[in-house]
Amino acid sequence: MNVLPADIWLRVKRGVTLWEALENTDIELEGECGGLGKCGKCKIRVITAIGPPTAETAELLTPEELDKGIRLACRTKIKKDLVIRTEVLNNEVELFQILKYGEMPIIELDPLVDKRSVSVAPPSLQNVLSDVDRIREALGPEYQNLKISHHCLASLYGDLRATNFDGTAVLHDGCLLAWEPAKMAARRYGLIFDLGTSTLVGKLVSLLEGQEVAVVSRLNSQSKHGTNVISRIQYVKEHSKDGLSHMRRLLMEDINTLTHRLLEVGRLVAEEIFVVVTAGNTTMQHFLLGLNPTGIAEAPFAPVITEAVVVRAQDVGLHLHPDAMLYVMPSKSGYIGGDLIGFMLASGAADREDRLALGLDFGTNGEIFLGNRRRMLTCSAAAGPALEGARITRGMIGKAGAIEGVRLEDNDLRYQVIGNIKPKGLCGSGLVDLVALLLHHGLVDSEGLLRPSQEGQVNAMESRVIKRKGSEVHDFLVASSRESFDGREIYLTQDDVRELQLAKGAIAAGVKILIKTMGVDIGDIDVIYLAGALGNYINPYSAMRVGLIPRLDPEKITPLGNAASTGAKMALLSRRCWEKSAEITHLVKHVELSSHPDFFHYFIEEMNYPGENLW
Amino acid sequence: MNVLPADIWLRVKRGVTLWEALENTDIELEGECGGLGKCGKCKIRVITAIGPPTAETAELLTPEELDKGIRLACRTKIKKDLVIRTEVLNNEVELFQILKYGEMPIIELDPLVDKRSVSVAPPSLQNVLSDVDRIREALGPEYQNLKISHHCLASLYGDLRATNFDGTAVLHDGCLLAWEPAKMAARRYGLIFDLGTSTLVGKLVSLLEGQEVAVVSRLNSQSKHGTNVISRIQYVKEHSKDGLSHMRRLLMEDINTLTHRLLEVGRLVAEEIFVVVTAGNTTMQHFLLGLNPTGIAEAPFAPVITEAVVVRAQDVGLHLHPDAMLYVMPSKSGYIGGDLIGFMLASGAADREDRLALGLDFGTNGEIFLGNRRRMLTCSAAAGPALEGARITRGMIGKAGAIEGVRLEDNDLRYQVIGNIKPKGLCGSGLVDLVALLLHHGLVDSEGLLRPSQEGQVNAMESRVIKRKGSEVHDFLVASSRESFDGREIYLTQDDVRELQLAKGAIAAGVKILIKTMGVDIGDIDVIYLAGALGNYINPYSAMRVGLIPRLDPEKITPLGNAASTGAKMALLSRRCWEKSAEITHLVKHVELSSHPDFFHYFIEEMNYPGENLW
Ligand code: FES
Ligand code: FES
Repeated sequence: MNVLPADIWLRVKRGVTLWEALENTDIELEGECGGLGKCGKCKIRVITAIGPPTAETAELLTPEELDKGIRLACRTKIKKDLVIRTEVLNNEVELFQILKYGEMPIIELDPLVDKRSVSVAPPSLQNVLSDVDRIREALGPEYQNLKISHHCLASLYGDLRATNFDGTAVLHDGCLLAWEPAKMAARRYGLIFDLGTSTLVGKLVSLLEGQEVAVVSRLNSQSKHGTNVISRIQYVKEHSKDGLSHMRRLLMEDINTLTHRLLEVGRLVAEEIFVVVTAGNTTMQHFLLGLNPTGIAEAPFAPVITEAVVVRAQDVGLHLHPDAMLYVMPSKSGYIGGDLIGFMLASGAADREDRLALGLDFGTNGEIFLGNRRRMLTCSAAAGPALEGARITRGMIGKAGAIEGVRLEDNDLRYQVIGNIKPKGLCGSGLVDLVALLLHHGLVDSEGLLRPSQEGQVNAMESRVIKRKGSEVHDFLVASSRESFDGREIYLTQDDVRELQLAKGAIAAGVKILIKTMGVDIGDIDVIYLAGALGNYINPYSAMRVGLIPRLDPEKITPLGNAASTGAKMALLSRRCWEKSAEITHLVKHVELSSHPDFFHYFIEEMNYPGENLW
Repeated sequence: MNVLPADIWLRVKRGVTLWEALENTDIELEGECGGLGKCGKCKIRVITAIGPPTAETAELLTPEELDKGIRLACRTKIKKDLVIRTEVLNNEVELFQILKYGEMPIIELDPLVDKRSVSVAPPSLQNVLSDVDRIREALGPEYQNLKISHHCLASLYGDLRATNFDGTAVLHDGCLLAWEPAKMAARRYGLIFDLGTSTLVGKLVSLLEGQEVAVVSRLNSQSKHGTNVISRIQYVKEHSKDGLSHMRRLLMEDINTLTHRLLEVGRLVAEEIFVVVTAGNTTMQHFLLGLNPTGIAEAPFAPVITEAVVVRAQDVGLHLHPDAMLYVMPSKSGYIGGDLIGFMLASGAADREDRLALGLDFGTNGEIFLGNRRRMLTCSAAAGPALEGARITRGMIGKAGAIEGVRLEDNDLRYQVIGNIKPKGLCGSGLVDLVALLLHHGLVDSEGLLRPSQEGQVNAMESRVIKRKGSEVHDFLVASSRESFDGREIYLTQDDVRELQLAKGAIAAGVKILIKTMGVDIGDIDVIYLAGALGNYINPYSAMRVGLIPRLDPEKITPLGNAASTGAKMALLSRRCWEKSAEITHLVKHVELSSHPDFFHYFIEEMNYPGENLW
């Protein structure tokens, strides 16, 4: 089988599906349902002759697509030699709107790994100490109990002499990791990784100045086994023999690829990196460490470990200096992961007593925190992936071609597309913006029904509300076939409006439960921190209009960008911040929504869109 | 090339010496000079036709040997296919009189690695803690800060469930190394290794009761690069590319071989061993850790490291449980190694204030300590290898065929041979015994001259003092060609007497300097501890007669056997003892003899044998 555009040749067995054939390759398909033939996203195009589609394929694809040879990889069995073209380009060449930066509070630089220029006395009859003791002597009294890694020790004799006893000590937590030439003192770098379920972001950070030298990202290769952690855990359960190691390997390859690129940009070699900090949800962190995450998916949702893990990076398969240390952020529970702890750390919410902070991270699980240094509550609301563009008819993640915002101009809809190309679909912020606009204009009512306004006036907006043939409900035409990238109309469907309704209902119910548990009112909130890409690009008015965030003075809203990686960076640059992340996990009390007696009640209550307009 | 009796076929290059050809094989030659053609011990027998010997070979071998095809491996170049027979049998089948046991003070069992039977609460809605936190809970408050090795963590999910949450925790210094089935609680073993320059001894020790379950030993394979550490360090220097790794590999293979056999005897698998303690001289410990020992051989004799090293056994190449810990005993300097620290630990000398103890370990370097808990001095006297049988014409180590003791019976010499076979040579204790006897009977005078007694009486003893043809001096016939194992006469030569004289002179001078430095008299010594095989088998009266140990009440002499391994065992069984070994290194003050102003003076003074008879 030949796969274009990557031009890869694969030997495959007859009878397996294209999905299975591509599973262990570098080629990534978009499938959200994990190969179950339900999401219709794992499209590929078969160039050579092909038989009729299966019933499922026919249902999920347009006749034009079928004509072009487009099929669902997970429903197409291989019967003979064939050439296919993956519609999705290699994810790396595309323009992502992943948040790669983030705001960071001012911290004192005290990185997890430090370097010091040291002049060691050479051995002499006056100084017959061992090499190690002479290094201790040179480092001064605070390093009296200095330890040495075995790897460093093994080459110390030669290294000390090669540098004429004048070099750079690489120090980690009272342990000498390496002895380098003197000129290496100025090269101090660390890596951080934000391990998202859908996207992995890596950054190369200078430990001397704290700034980000390089940032790269890629789609999480595990995505081919489902877009959410539950389907990946399911995969591990179903492949008890090697499912876990397969997932771990996919992640390692991704991280090593990102690392490779970061090093290229920074003109560094792998051996120069002595420290990595990662923040991710609990499941991704389990995969990173090779831990079985099955417990997280089953009541009572117990992970193998929640506290921070510090381990040699080499032991988990990262290709860096052999003694490089990997710091994995602590998590609180199966659903309150290192990413949320990083978010809290970046927000500084747990540092202050005088301000009540609400934090919102919109992902597949809406993660929420509320509190301050005295008390901090968190919960995780199963918002579904709607805000990430999944389960939305023409939804997509925030990359080139996604409508990220809409506005009214000359009484008609105008949209803004990432990359300024023709639109391919809607990402989360575009979805929220659009539904807010429709609510404002009465085209969606507070119960979430999409219909022409009662007044009977026909204007440009009204005319976009269409009952398509064979349909009982109305949809909203966002872009005509002429306007869109692929020549297919882009509709916001009634179902899409409902999906957003479910997501916002879950999140608003979560916020409400935290507010009640804390014994405060919405009005007592002093600041709202938003994390993640959606939090950064979302229009605060639209978010309030649809009820995704509480109606407060918009001045109170502070988007923090990629807050998980900001937290990881803070931990990398300051041992105090690293320690604080553990303190936060002890401070935090988790409120389990699924078993909370009021959750269902609040969820129903919050399902409706707010009735009142905001502007 | 075919090597008998091992029946090994080797492909070798023309022009290399037999020594070089055998260097990287399992076949061990005895050579003491490290292949320099000086010691005449690397004998092999060439079965196929062979050319005339080199001049060096001819000088070091008897004409009979040359006739039989015996050659020095290090001086014989390979010119064509040949079959050789190594005279030395594979070292393992021989009977060694290596001291494998030792007396141990009573200690409280608190092994470096411990096991505990634990019942962990399964996850439930009432207990949503992580697996790790539930283990902590089950272990109780003292394990609140329990850490987990990454390897253990990676399989913990499955291991806990496979054991139904009821198992055995393997604990090391506050860290969980493994979770095992409940029935494994009773299987607790550790290994100790005494890394001697010539012999390696390994023991399997029960951590439940402290007894030695199995003991094995083998010749140190590094011996083919010289019998003393200096020639091995020289080898490392001359082979800067891979000399160190070659030496390390030889040692690792030896240790892994010993381990394999210990496990076989104990019916254990490698994964059941979680802890190893080694004691050895500083150079052997450097080899073990892969550290360059070059500094030890050059003034100012600075090792890379002296303090104890605790490292994952896997990191240095031992095949045990992946998380097994290797404890390497601390040393004090290049010549006061972990073996001497182990000796001091085993003696308990540093525990008591009220007794002044003298400790003597007779090896290539005579290692000496003097003191008590208040003050402890050590020195290392370059006694040469005479006491180990090397550099003595018919000297040999204490294995089958060695004369280990002599006595007078019916006015003639009677000897006692290890293994009760015909004698092959003299080992250290036989040498000391014999010279003491000759001194007693006036056949050796206090200046070390071997000659017939002045009285002119001719008795059986007298008649053994022979001036051999072509010789200016007298030698002493120990065994006639009829009596000896190989049909060659066994003489104690005048040179042999001188060698012992040098050895005892160096040791006695060392003792004297410690005595003076301490400001005490010989008579103040309350107890003399002897370590090592020689210390155990030596006749105290003979040792005093030749002046090897001070003349004191023989009741004060306590042989401790293999004291280094006893010290290692104590450290294995008791964390307190392990910690004490570090305290000892801090207590100890090393007196450098080579630069001591009085050493040469005392050495000359002590070179003479004592004049007075003892019995
Ligand atoms: S339809 Fe193929 S992956 Fe979802
Ligand atoms: S003579 Fe060959 S090793 Fe010494």
